[in-house]
Amino acid sequence: MTRVTILGAGDMGTALLTPLHGGGHELRLWGTERDAAIIAALERGDPHPRLGIPLPRGVSTFGHTEAAAALDGAEIVVVAITSNAIRPVLGRLVHELGDPRAIVVVGKGFDSGPKGDEILLLPRVIAEFSRSPVVAVGGPSIAKEVAIGTPTAAMFGSADAGALALTREVFGTAVYAIEITDDVAGLEVAAAMKNAYGVAIGIADGIEKRTGLPHANLRAALFPHAVAEMGLLAEALGGRRETVAGLSGAGDLQVTVTSGRNRLLGERIGLGLSGAEAFQELTAAGTTTEGYLATDYGYRLAQQAIPASEPVSRRYPLLDALYRVLYEEAPASEALWNAVRSR
Amino acid sequence: MTRVTILGAGDMGTALLTPLHGGGHELRLWGTERDAAIIAALERGDPHPRLGIPLPRGVSTFGHTEAAAALDGAEIVVVAITSNAIRPVLGRLVHELGDPRAIVVVGKGFDSGPKGDEILLLPRVIAEFSRSPVVAVGGPSIAKEVAIGTPTAAMFGSADAGALALTREVFGTAVYAIEITDDVAGLEVAAAMKNAYGVAIGIADGIEKRTGLPHANLRAALFPHAVAEMGLLAEALGGRRETVAGLSGAGDLQVTVTSGRNRLLGERIGLGLSGAEAFQELTAAGTTTEGYLATDYGYRLAQQAIPASEPVSRRYPLLDALYRVLYEEAPASEALWNAVRSR
Repeated sequence: MTRVTILGAGDMGTALLTPLHGGGHELRLWGTERDAAIIAALERGDPHPRLGIPLPRGVSTFGHTEAAAALDGAEIVVVAITSNAIRPVLGRLVHELGDPRAIVVVGKGFDSGPKGDEILLLPRVIAEFSRSPVVAVGGPSIAKEVAIGTPTAAMFGSADAGALALTREVFGTAVYAIEITDDVAGLEVAAAMKNAYGVAIGIADGIEKRTGLPHANLRAALFPHAVAEMGLLAEALGGRRETVAGLSGAGDLQVTVTSGRNRLLGERIGLGLSGAEAFQELTAAGTTTEGYLATDYGYRLAQQAIPASEPVSRRYPLLDALYRVLYEEAPASEALWNAVRSR
Repeated sequence: MTRVTILGAGDMGTALLTPLHGGGHELRLWGTERDAAIIAALERGDPHPRLGIPLPRGVSTFGHTEAAAALDGAEIVVVAITSNAIRPVLGRLVHELGDPRAIVVVGKGFDSGPKGDEILLLPRVIAEFSRSPVVAVGGPSIAKEVAIGTPTAAMFGSADAGALALTREVFGTAVYAIEITDDVAGLEVAAAMKNAYGVAIGIADGIEKRTGLPHANLRAALFPHAVAEMGLLAEALGGRRETVAGLSGAGDLQVTVTSGRNRLLGERIGLGLSGAEAFQELTAAGTTTEGYLATDYGYRLAQQAIPASEPVSRRYPLLDALYRVLYEEAPASEALWNAVRSR
């Protein structure tokens, strides 16, 4: 039995209780200030408002003022907080966090540095607050499916083999399979950038709706180019192409383009909105589309990885096109198709 | 202006007239005996019965007894005939076929050898009938979209650089982009096997329908494993992994799992039919699902590529599972999931 504390009662934090529950561990769910209504619902015995399922039996819940109790003696801490909220939240918990045997991070890939002038992989953000080994989680995992227990294969990545073995043992079940890798950079680049490229592929869906003509060939042409560019960016950051070709890259992109929220952002752009309009519309409706910011981060990372004299479009034509569509009002259809044709 | 003769008035043969027509070439469409009703409809000015669009203006049509006229002076011949019909049809046309500057083959990947005891890539089948350089076509190309002219990126592969340059020039348009490769083996393995793996992924759709529970995570977990196994099989046949990671592998699989007929075969199996029952049902309804036979071919190729003492499941767990589901009535859900978990 392992004591596991989950920080963040959002979809994925709560969903992971399902595989964890099967292993008979001591489970605690702590909600941030923003999660107050969720924690209240769960404590009443109501289902999680977004996942639609109740808490597994025996899980303790903690409100945002109860972090010390939630973290007391925790052997594994799961950080399931939106990427850009990790730093402020962990900053307030730094004394309670301690040094568990592993910190598992399920946020998506990148955040900016403390001064906002650099881009860091999430495990490096976590390392600002604890010396514990960090395990990053990637791979195609719609939270709802993890919660209801339909088969899911995730990818856990860490430089620490002991933490990988521990977390694989604690989280893995007959329906939640875990592949492991030491390629944290490859995993995190894919985890972040699949949201960006998911927007690009979603644009084809919008063009299809707008024109009334099928565009499956365009969608499919974008797919391998997206995986190739994610692999190139991973390599530039010290990761490996093979990681990106696997569950956490191609696999996660596949689920993103059929079921993800970032696809919706692309769809609105394909229907005729500008990138900024589409992002604002979805944000106002409460839908987080990480791909918008990931495109900017990815674009800056690509710029840093190539000679200053070289345009991003030479090695990353699709990312360049997407950046111009999202931030510079480039016409989406032409920009994407020209990126495909430039190969 | 180039004289191009298309053999086969099925969906893809007819669809390719759209990009060709833009280039002002002299175009001829010859129908096999099975295409008689299609040729008759097109000659009346009616739309192609399956594609739903009429012949581009200026294309000449030829019935199956008019092969000599159709092929007279042809500089490029397109073989757009179902894989297993190529040998009998070309056998009857061998004197009319001659030695055009290029023979383009759009059938899918493999056929058995003349005695049925070996498996050949389609370009080798064509080479039994002509000394002309052969160009194989792969990549995500739903015929209907090629016909209506929505953006499509195809992959042309040949060992003959001149034939590649010629066909790229003749077929390429602003909306039909052509990438080229010399890796014919990689292209053809992917072209054939994406239909097989498309069945595997389609099974997740059927499980979803049967159980009423979403299985997007399973579908997405299968995807990168499918691409990895196609890459391994391509390498075993002298091809390259990168080809399979591109348009003709990952790209084509992506379109197959969303829009292809092989997906339907998987779906019926996921709903509870045996592989044989599902195949018979679709065949009876006039739906060709090449993935059924491609699984058998692929399984035999994999067996030949590994040491005799090694089970296929060690390097090709998903192909092995699919083979057992299609031909040995293995329970689909368990077989596929165990293949994913064995990684």
